[in-house]
Amino acid sequence: MTDSKGKALSNSKEKVLSNEEILNSLSSFGKNMVDQIKNEEPPKFFVPTRTQTNIRYDEEKRLLRLGEGKSERKFINAAHTRKFMQTTMVASACMSYVNAEKTVGKRELYYNLKHSLPNSKENTFDDDTESGSVLDDLECSLDILRSQLHVNAKGRGSVYGDITIKQAGDEFNCSGLGRGGWLIPGNVEDIEITNCNADFILAIENDAMMSRLIEEKTWKSLGCILVTGEGMFPRGVRRFLKILYERLKLPVITFVDGDPYGFYIYSVLKYGSINLAHLSDKYAVPTAKYVGMTMDDIETYNLKNVTEKLKDIDRNRINEEMRYPWFKNNPVWLRQLKLMAEKGIRIEQQALANKSLEFVASTYLPEKIENEMFLD
Amino acid sequence: MTDSKGKALSNSKEKVLSNEEILNSLSSFGKNMVDQIKNEEPPKFFVPTRTQTNIRYDEEKRLLRLGEGKSERKFINAAHTRKFMQTTMVASACMSYVNAEKTVGKRELYYNLKHSLPNSKENTFDDDTESGSVLDDLECSLDILRSQLHVNAKGRGSVYGDITIKQAGDEFNCSGLGRGGWLIPGNVEDIEITNCNADFILAIENDAMMSRLIEEKTWKSLGCILVTGEGMFPRGVRRFLKILYERLKLPVITFVDGDPYGFYIYSVLKYGSINLAHLSDKYAVPTAKYVGMTMDDIETYNLKNVTEKLKDIDRNRINEEMRYPWFKNNPVWLRQLKLMAEKGIRIEQQALANKSLEFVASTYLPEKIENEMFLD
Repeated sequence: MTDSKGKALSNSKEKVLSNEEILNSLSSFGKNMVDQIKNEEPPKFFVPTRTQTNIRYDEEKRLLRLGEGKSERKFINAAHTRKFMQTTMVASACMSYVNAEKTVGKRELYYNLKHSLPNSKENTFDDDTESGSVLDDLECSLDILRSQLHVNAKGRGSVYGDITIKQAGDEFNCSGLGRGGWLIPGNVEDIEITNCNADFILAIENDAMMSRLIEEKTWKSLGCILVTGEGMFPRGVRRFLKILYERLKLPVITFVDGDPYGFYIYSVLKYGSINLAHLSDKYAVPTAKYVGMTMDDIETYNLKNVTEKLKDIDRNRINEEMRYPWFKNNPVWLRQLKLMAEKGIRIEQQALANKSLEFVASTYLPEKIENEMFLD
Repeated sequence: MTDSKGKALSNSKEKVLSNEEILNSLSSFGKNMVDQIKNEEPPKFFVPTRTQTNIRYDEEKRLLRLGEGKSERKFINAAHTRKFMQTTMVASACMSYVNAEKTVGKRELYYNLKHSLPNSKENTFDDDTESGSVLDDLECSLDILRSQLHVNAKGRGSVYGDITIKQAGDEFNCSGLGRGGWLIPGNVEDIEITNCNADFILAIENDAMMSRLIEEKTWKSLGCILVTGEGMFPRGVRRFLKILYERLKLPVITFVDGDPYGFYIYSVLKYGSINLAHLSDKYAVPTAKYVGMTMDDIETYNLKNVTEKLKDIDRNRINEEMRYPWFKNNPVWLRQLKLMAEKGIRIEQQALANKSLEFVASTYLPEKIENEMFLD
């Protein structure tokens, strides 16, 4: 299978977990407990520790990772019993979802499993943070994403460009969709990319910039796939970007606001997030580049008049980010953060409209991308 | 032009504002001022008053409307001058957008027009609430929607089903899109519906229920178009629903959480919103029906165990809604609100997953829709 530029689409090479492998993994998890019970041992299992102290930044692979810390969860421990029961319930439910080829939302999972325990007033789950938390444990212990366990992320964000996708028996191209695009669903594990005609993927912070770039037909003129996560990219969009990156071997270029939030969106895309450090290898794109907005753009493009003043909350965020290892040890990023704090201003993507509506598509992006004026 | 069920697609009958009409309207707005200046009168224009005191509920048409209140905006009045200038700037920019066939986001408009005034430190706009507010005035004075002035709403929400749409030179069908759908863009004024095979439109509160109904192929089994606004429906989605309703003459059925927020989503869809009372006739669908969730569903479907307790904020909202004229004078809705307060519980759409994942698609919706068990 090749794309129209003769690039191999490595669907077959990438390690995709088959439903069979997922079922085997869930099944081993259960069998292990059954064996313990048969051997008259109290059943238990291990969960990697996900607290800050067990998270480290892998300088070499440029990824956030979990350390070796693990904790035991025992059935015969009054403090663990409830969570033990919940974990086995969620594992069993996920097994039935995978078997039935159904997917569920996080809240649907909660309601699906919520009931009163026989002869008691105790509920299996009292709210969805309980089911969410055991889902996190399960994801982490089995090293299988919740979306691979058929629990969906939020369906948010969209894609536009000449890429043909197969999913759930349908095959469709993500261009030729008017002003809209394909809504990236909360589960993209089962997508297959059958064709793609693009040189890179542009990951865009907000939906208004996405609309601008669709209207200017930038996906055609620059030869790229436009993807937006509408603010902080949700899991579904990050997973979609990761799958595109892995299978198409195309560079991912990030285009966000020049402020601590934009910088953070980029860093999560590139290194992983602190909350999901155990999953960085399934979400992060370590080669992702940053095209803008930068503090230097303000001078280069004479945009001083359309910057916004920093608020206290922005300054606090800058200080926090200066302590992140991936920024702290990187002079390029440290300079950006310092410049921002010194000037006391931030700049949004849309500020480019001050030059002209077309400027971003006709000048800014082509110039910076062609000359590889990236931050890394 | 007909749909596959032989229903006339009344694209031609509905009052669609052509770009020419919009340009004429903007042009008259400007010419009027030029005439005043030529006559040596200080230029002024009128803006309908949008405060609470000028909003009334039209019992007959079942719509929120503005009363007759108007206020003058004069150039020669120190308190008006800035807003006067801003209004003419925005009107002029919109004219250029319509002429150039460009659309802009609200924040893009702000940045596009922001500059320092010659020989002063004064900016044309200091933040986007200023440009947003004059845009509201303009929309209201000209009786033309901001999207018709080529200023986009947020692109959010999606549609799935057998409907074929033409927009911006593309023609596409909104089914066969895997687990995603067509992202409803922030501007749908220029859509044309070339085919539709459905009996009704189902307006769904949240994206997880949308995913469920896509997965269950409900659009096929029930013969409907699925639309979600992901929470409170944004302007773009409401306009999309209105256009579908007007052109396809299909019933709109609302499916939301059984709580004060779900009720409000329905009421905004049906009667209009207080903030945009002047635009109700362009957004509201007065014949919209409500299929669920209802307080009665809790008994009927034995869902007591998956209700959520009301918080103080929910109770305050219930009390507020009991005072809204469209609920206050409607025994059906007053009963629902009272029941909710008495029982002290609310119920989410996803709670139906407690029966089974398929239940909503195989039983709940078909049963209630076939038997027209609606609240109205």
